[in-house]
Amino acid sequence: MATLCRPAIAVPEHVITREQTLDLARTLHADHPQLPLALRLIGNTGVQTRHLVQPIEDTLRHPGFTARNARYEAEAKARTPEVIRRALAHAELTTRDIDMIVYVSCTGFMMPSMTAWLINTMDFRATTRQLPIAQLGCAAGGAALNRAHDFCTAYPGSNVLIVACEFCSLLYQPTDLGVGNLLSNGLFGDALAAAVVRGEGGSGVRLEQNGSHLVPDTEEWISYGVRDTGFHFMLDKRVPGTMAMLAPAMRAMAEPHDWDVSGLDFYIVHAGGPRILDDLSKYLNLAPETFRYSRATLTERGNIASAVIFDALERLFQDGGADHSARGIIAGFGPGITAEIALGTWNAPDREGEPALAAQLPV
Amino acid sequence: MATLCRPAIAVPEHVITREQTLDLARTLHADHPQLPLALRLIGNTGVQTRHLVQPIEDTLRHPGFTARNARYEAEAKARTPEVIRRALAHAELTTRDIDMIVYVSCTGFMMPSMTAWLINTMDFRATTRQLPIAQLGCAAGGAALNRAHDFCTAYPGSNVLIVACEFCSLLYQPTDLGVGNLLSNGLFGDALAAAVVRGEGGSGVRLEQNGSHLVPDTEEWISYGVRDTGFHFMLDKRVPGTMAMLAPAMRAMAEPHDWDVSGLDFYIVHAGGPRILDDLSKYLNLAPETFRYSRATLTERGNIASAVIFDALERLFQDGGADHSARGIIAGFGPGITAEIALGTWNAPDREGEPALAAQLPV
Repeated sequence: MATLCRPAIAVPEHVITREQTLDLARTLHADHPQLPLALRLIGNTGVQTRHLVQPIEDTLRHPGFTARNARYEAEAKARTPEVIRRALAHAELTTRDIDMIVYVSCTGFMMPSMTAWLINTMDFRATTRQLPIAQLGCAAGGAALNRAHDFCTAYPGSNVLIVACEFCSLLYQPTDLGVGNLLSNGLFGDALAAAVVRGEGGSGVRLEQNGSHLVPDTEEWISYGVRDTGFHFMLDKRVPGTMAMLAPAMRAMAEPHDWDVSGLDFYIVHAGGPRILDDLSKYLNLAPETFRYSRATLTERGNIASAVIFDALERLFQDGGADHSARGIIAGFGPGITAEIALGTWNAPDREGEPALAAQLPV
Repeated sequence: MATLCRPAIAVPEHVITREQTLDLARTLHADHPQLPLALRLIGNTGVQTRHLVQPIEDTLRHPGFTARNARYEAEAKARTPEVIRRALAHAELTTRDIDMIVYVSCTGFMMPSMTAWLINTMDFRATTRQLPIAQLGCAAGGAALNRAHDFCTAYPGSNVLIVACEFCSLLYQPTDLGVGNLLSNGLFGDALAAAVVRGEGGSGVRLEQNGSHLVPDTEEWISYGVRDTGFHFMLDKRVPGTMAMLAPAMRAMAEPHDWDVSGLDFYIVHAGGPRILDDLSKYLNLAPETFRYSRATLTERGNIASAVIFDALERLFQDGGADHSARGIIAGFGPGITAEIALGTWNAPDREGEPALAAQLPV
């Protein structure tokens, strides 16, 4: 059975604090009629720090889509190998053991995809399957996990590397002045994540079931305008209320597996914003601290898109992990509105109550 | 075992002939120092007609990436449902039977992806998995097929819808004047394809094995420049020679399956250009007519990117299909340089030498 191993996370070196973000909004949008609302919304996110691939002065300049995307490519090539090496080390594998790379990123576009560059540069096998996904936004981390799970189910013993590379700051659009844009400018951060799904062996989350859910007729709620100036992120004010639809979808997915989604042991969910986490607590009847790992990601790094679930999961690992066989859920949410949901149990072979099979064997 | 059912194909209503293409090149590039070479290369493609989503006068205008991509979205929404309905009919399924949609297209970008729109508009189930792939170019048709095969292997009895939507004419860049660009302007065409991979039942190609191969250090050979003006297709003159590397990869993939890639019954391969097909004949020691379906696609429609393999396969269906249990290969080639290869046998239950099980049962 496939196991999601410990992720590796990296954040860029440039940091912007909550106060700097609010000051910037005040300076840049002094005459904006809805500035007070924007400031309140940014303040309410709870985001304290975010990391950026460039100093803030450069982030605020728009050098054109050509230069922006070139920057994306340069930063992705500079930053992904290190995080991949750590993820492989966590899984006790090398690049030669990987059968598929799922590369998810909605903040730059390349063809050939980064998967080709990674295979060439890091000595993956030439037969490694490439699965680049650019159009699932923040849900793509969950989608990557679920497609990796499917692949290992189809080919037991195979291993899938997931890479999530999100440089949201490269999507800053100085001419977008809606309140949703001002909020987004204060919400999103840059980060990279990598994690291996091992078909056999490994410690982490043993993947049992996965599913997807599209909320009908909400395509316009989170979307990109694709323009001469690149990708323009558009956020509808109805998005924070999405959990009213997605909490039942999570429940419906867990039920055929005979799991009560309100009674699990760990919860790793997309931290799109604070209301997402608050509402999940409410609709799933769970204490707010249930979502502490996702909340910590949001607070320290902002919404880092498809990398959120891996960052939150890494915090659970840092915290010592869960008990062996503890049951949990991982859920990414993104445009569509789409949820990509996985159910799994914590697998810590060295921590089983019963001695592991190997320990019972004569040495 | 998963079966790729009969594809459905659609081409837009605007047609440009070989002579019109050559005349246009002569008119637009009268002073180009390499015009004679470009004309010879275009002539050598063997492409007789291509279909375009707009009249040629509009195709030759570049209204900016914003308008281009909006046009892509409008055309995709206008044209995909009909071809999907026919593909579902071929598979004797409805939208409610589909578990995953793989949407491949490298000629426009949307977020949410077309998959969300299709689910909402055509009454697919809300739990349908979405797998949009934008970054595998002409290899994406093969990748879609292979990921669909994987999914049905993981979940026997599930069904995957593949949609390939390629409007290559929306990538025309009037300022790109390299010989490779001039050739591309005379090579690519627009088309849509859809096909269902049925996990159980169905007639068509029973999928047995799939694999991917990346030719080392050829990332620059086929690529997009991603710019303010949209996607700029860049074709290296070494690309036509790629079969020297990919024919051995096809052989290597077939061997562990105990198949001799030079001794199969049908061949459905990407028709990137005439040299691809000529060289496959040479390196695999096969008569040129072995690739007649791919050649016909190239001649009548040009290189229609990820849709080629489905168009060529549909020609085999039109031709009466293959004998039951006939062995064949389907291969997409694209940027990377990447090959996505599938091995399968023709499954025509009504044509088996032995009476089918149902026929043996007492009525």
